[in-house]
Amino acid sequence: MYARITAGIRKAILSGQLADNSRLPTNRELANLLKIDRSTVSRAYLELSQSGFIDSHVGRGTFVRPLAQRSAPRPTESNIEALSDSALNWSDKFSESSRTSLDLISRQPAGTNQHDMISFAGGIPTEEFYPNDQFQRIVSQLLKSEHAAEMFGYSAADGSPYLRAQVKSHLQSHGIECGDDELLIVSGSQQGIDLVTNVLVDPGDLVVLEDPSYFWAICNFRARQARCLPVSMDDDGIRLDLLESYLSRQKAKLLYVMPSFQNPTGATMSLPRRMALLELAKKYQVPILEDNFVGDLVYRDTPLPPLRSLPGGKDVVIHQGTFSKALCPGLRLGWLVAPPEVTARLLLAKRTSDLSTNSIAQIILAKYLEEGLYSKHLEHVRLCYRNRRDAMLTALSRHLSGRFSEFTDGDSTKFGDRTRFDSDVKSGDGTKLTWSNPDGGLFIWAKLPKGLSAREFLTFAEMQGVSFSPGDMFFLNGGHSEYFRLCFIQTEESIIEEGIQRLARAMRSYLQTVARSSLSELSGGARVRNNVLI
Amino acid sequence: MYARITAGIRKAILSGQLADNSRLPTNRELANLLKIDRSTVSRAYLELSQSGFIDSHVGRGTFVRPLAQRSAPRPTESNIEALSDSALNWSDKFSESSRTSLDLISRQPAGTNQHDMISFAGGIPTEEFYPNDQFQRIVSQLLKSEHAAEMFGYSAADGSPYLRAQVKSHLQSHGIECGDDELLIVSGSQQGIDLVTNVLVDPGDLVVLEDPSYFWAICNFRARQARCLPVSMDDDGIRLDLLESYLSRQKAKLLYVMPSFQNPTGATMSLPRRMALLELAKKYQVPILEDNFVGDLVYRDTPLPPLRSLPGGKDVVIHQGTFSKALCPGLRLGWLVAPPEVTARLLLAKRTSDLSTNSIAQIILAKYLEEGLYSKHLEHVRLCYRNRRDAMLTALSRHLSGRFSEFTDGDSTKFGDRTRFDSDVKSGDGTKLTWSNPDGGLFIWAKLPKGLSAREFLTFAEMQGVSFSPGDMFFLNGGHSEYFRLCFIQTEESIIEEGIQRLARAMRSYLQTVARSSLSELSGGARVRNNVLI
Repeated sequence: MYARITAGIRKAILSGQLADNSRLPTNRELANLLKIDRSTVSRAYLELSQSGFIDSHVGRGTFVRPLAQRSAPRPTESNIEALSDSALNWSDKFSESSRTSLDLISRQPAGTNQHDMISFAGGIPTEEFYPNDQFQRIVSQLLKSEHAAEMFGYSAADGSPYLRAQVKSHLQSHGIECGDDELLIVSGSQQGIDLVTNVLVDPGDLVVLEDPSYFWAICNFRARQARCLPVSMDDDGIRLDLLESYLSRQKAKLLYVMPSFQNPTGATMSLPRRMALLELAKKYQVPILEDNFVGDLVYRDTPLPPLRSLPGGKDVVIHQGTFSKALCPGLRLGWLVAPPEVTARLLLAKRTSDLSTNSIAQIILAKYLEEGLYSKHLEHVRLCYRNRRDAMLTALSRHLSGRFSEFTDGDSTKFGDRTRFDSDVKSGDGTKLTWSNPDGGLFIWAKLPKGLSAREFLTFAEMQGVSFSPGDMFFLNGGHSEYFRLCFIQTEESIIEEGIQRLARAMRSYLQTVARSSLSELSGGARVRNNVLI
Repeated sequence: MYARITAGIRKAILSGQLADNSRLPTNRELANLLKIDRSTVSRAYLELSQSGFIDSHVGRGTFVRPLAQRSAPRPTESNIEALSDSALNWSDKFSESSRTSLDLISRQPAGTNQHDMISFAGGIPTEEFYPNDQFQRIVSQLLKSEHAAEMFGYSAADGSPYLRAQVKSHLQSHGIECGDDELLIVSGSQQGIDLVTNVLVDPGDLVVLEDPSYFWAICNFRARQARCLPVSMDDDGIRLDLLESYLSRQKAKLLYVMPSFQNPTGATMSLPRRMALLELAKKYQVPILEDNFVGDLVYRDTPLPPLRSLPGGKDVVIHQGTFSKALCPGLRLGWLVAPPEVTARLLLAKRTSDLSTNSIAQIILAKYLEEGLYSKHLEHVRLCYRNRRDAMLTALSRHLSGRFSEFTDGDSTKFGDRTRFDSDVKSGDGTKLTWSNPDGGLFIWAKLPKGLSAREFLTFAEMQGVSFSPGDMFFLNGGHSEYFRLCFIQTEESIIEEGIQRLARAMRSYLQTVARSSLSELSGGARVRNNVLI
């Protein structure tokens, strides 16, 4: 039924029968008109919205998106090949790497273009903290200084000496001492990962990582045709009992971890776990890539030392960090610290990939660091982001801590019947939303009671004007559909409060739909399915 | 003998017997002292200079380089593994890709750190033309404009819309029309090559390229474990008779060409050859990567159209260009134009490699292009670089056009005996230096008579205070040791004249050494070898 509605409206839009910007009937109106359930209309509208035909604006209604603004559909194996009408049959030319990437990217939600959307998805620092004024002054000064020519010429492949000196002192503040032959400036963390994979991983090699992990790291390892081995985490970080049992049986080429404020869980590896992990890496001769992507965004007094700074860390750890999260991502600047023989290899991989890092951003950042402005910036954003984290935690408690049966307006029995919570739900009693309380970084990790799906929840959330990242995309083998990730740094406290209220409204309508849908399926004799909507 | 001298001096330096900055005897003094040939002393001094122990300054003498300035030796398989003293045995961890890169990089000459060196090596536009003042004004304006936030946030993965629009109109000036789904902004040409390889080439796949070709492209293809097939060139470009005979027997995944002002030869593919190449690519279903790295540096009135702009080009060509050569390399900005289905794949590879391109440089360049300043800049540099090309051609004619026997001070018979020129010398009569006359770009390609070696010549050139790139590094399988590459854009006319004079002096001493060495070997009953010095 919903498919028929979707197709009908799509046809009407494409034929011009429904003009650009014309208003569609509300869910209720269309449901009444067609004598169908509102959830069926919702699903049709969602699909149309995701494929770029319509826009829903909370409180204003649903409109036909103007032709010029219709987003290109997300590329998938089938629709990008359909684009082909050329003398060359490209489709049989693509590498395994490219096929793998295309497969993985489909995990990303399509997202919507709504203007009033409150986004807890992604993980991007906000413009309000970008150091525009300071950079403006710095650029003016630099262009009149002896550094001017450096800003436009090729940088040394291992980075501008000016920036390298500054990054070295910054690293010292994290307890990391490194020699000139142990440091490489890179174009952001993602390039760091790419270079390390390049230098250590051949197709078919084993890469071990926390499960869940950083989406683009998974993509990178997979695109290089690595075999990826997911290792579950507990409250102290990656589970070493599991890790050792794997490593004792298979030779791994790389272990990728984010010990502090992990993406997506926000979790921090305990100090004893860090020490034991280094021992294990040494015992089984596995290099560790320590991704310290939010090492500067700490909201407690005593941050834990990076693996690289611990005894023995120098030998087995490649340490990486970035200015993208704590300062601004447009610089595309990060660093790798590795033993000299590894750094020499990474440097060659860097030259083969893109010769060198952009010079302008390096020189600007070097001066910014030299003037001590980064430290001041960190003091400021740490405070702001801590407040935002607290605001989100408070709002979650205020609006989403009830038992889910309370949301269903009396349909609690049906809802309770359907979800069949099992003992696998780690925290809470399986009838509530649960979430983490991170010590730093960007993310709160949340979990629905088993039987509910974060992807389904997201469709309702986007209709209410709020978004987040569904958790299944971060798990190596997918699944775990009850998890989702909330980024708390992107919006100020009042918007966070409003966003979590929207999330609560979305939860209410999700649960009601689930209850109604379970009821109707039950009454129609159908069996209760795990995923009701999609 | 030379090895004993080298070892003795090295030991004296390391033991402190020869203090930092102390002056060594001249060639003549030491030769007289030890009663040996001056060429033996030269060779010892060269080796010490290349390994970073001493510096030679033309006219001032040779000095012990201070410890702090001694450059780290070039990384090689053996010396970087010798660095290892860690708990992890890294040496068995490295990928095939990394091993391949390390092998190839050893082709690069070590270079020297001499201050007064005139460099015709490399291919880097000079600081004097960097648009410092304009960029300074532009940055100030941008930071107060609506573009400010864009400069520090993540750029869209396919590039800033602002820059994309400007690049599209720039491409139109080259006859290239491309849609929004056919354009990708990349971090310079090298990343363009890396992404195309990523998307099209699996380990073991065949990549066909002109021989000789761009050094870092060869490195990139090899590092991805491609099989590389070199195809010789003639006056019209890559030889299609050879190409077709290869393609008819083997399935190639990529054909990499630089049709205009090729690196290293400076040669331009004729229009009929361009048309025929496209036909061949279609017939054998081989994608072409057209690297138009100096498309804007044309020194004649009517540049030839890029492959992408010719009939049928749209279907089989991935076109790439860069602002690194015509404007300045520190921006790290270039572009790829490809069919939509390919662009979608390249975009994913880009995100997996480094997420997105640095924003600051993109926005600055966009405004620079929008204001029409790039066109004005091109008018200016085209004129300057054409003058420099002419100056180098004139100086070569003036100082290096004689028969080589004229340089040898009467030893011409011995020299003539030794070189045994064969019919393979393409231009000239095999007794002279020959060189190309490029219509654009950066390079003049020169050829010694067969039997002489550009690497040997380089050692003499560096002693005279001038450098160039030995040609063998650009040939896929090495060899062709008689070729070398001169970059004419890096130095103004008077310096070019001085540099070519130094080159002529170096040639004289090279030929004298060869003649003497041949003579002494002949008189000692030894057979004449092809490579006398190294």
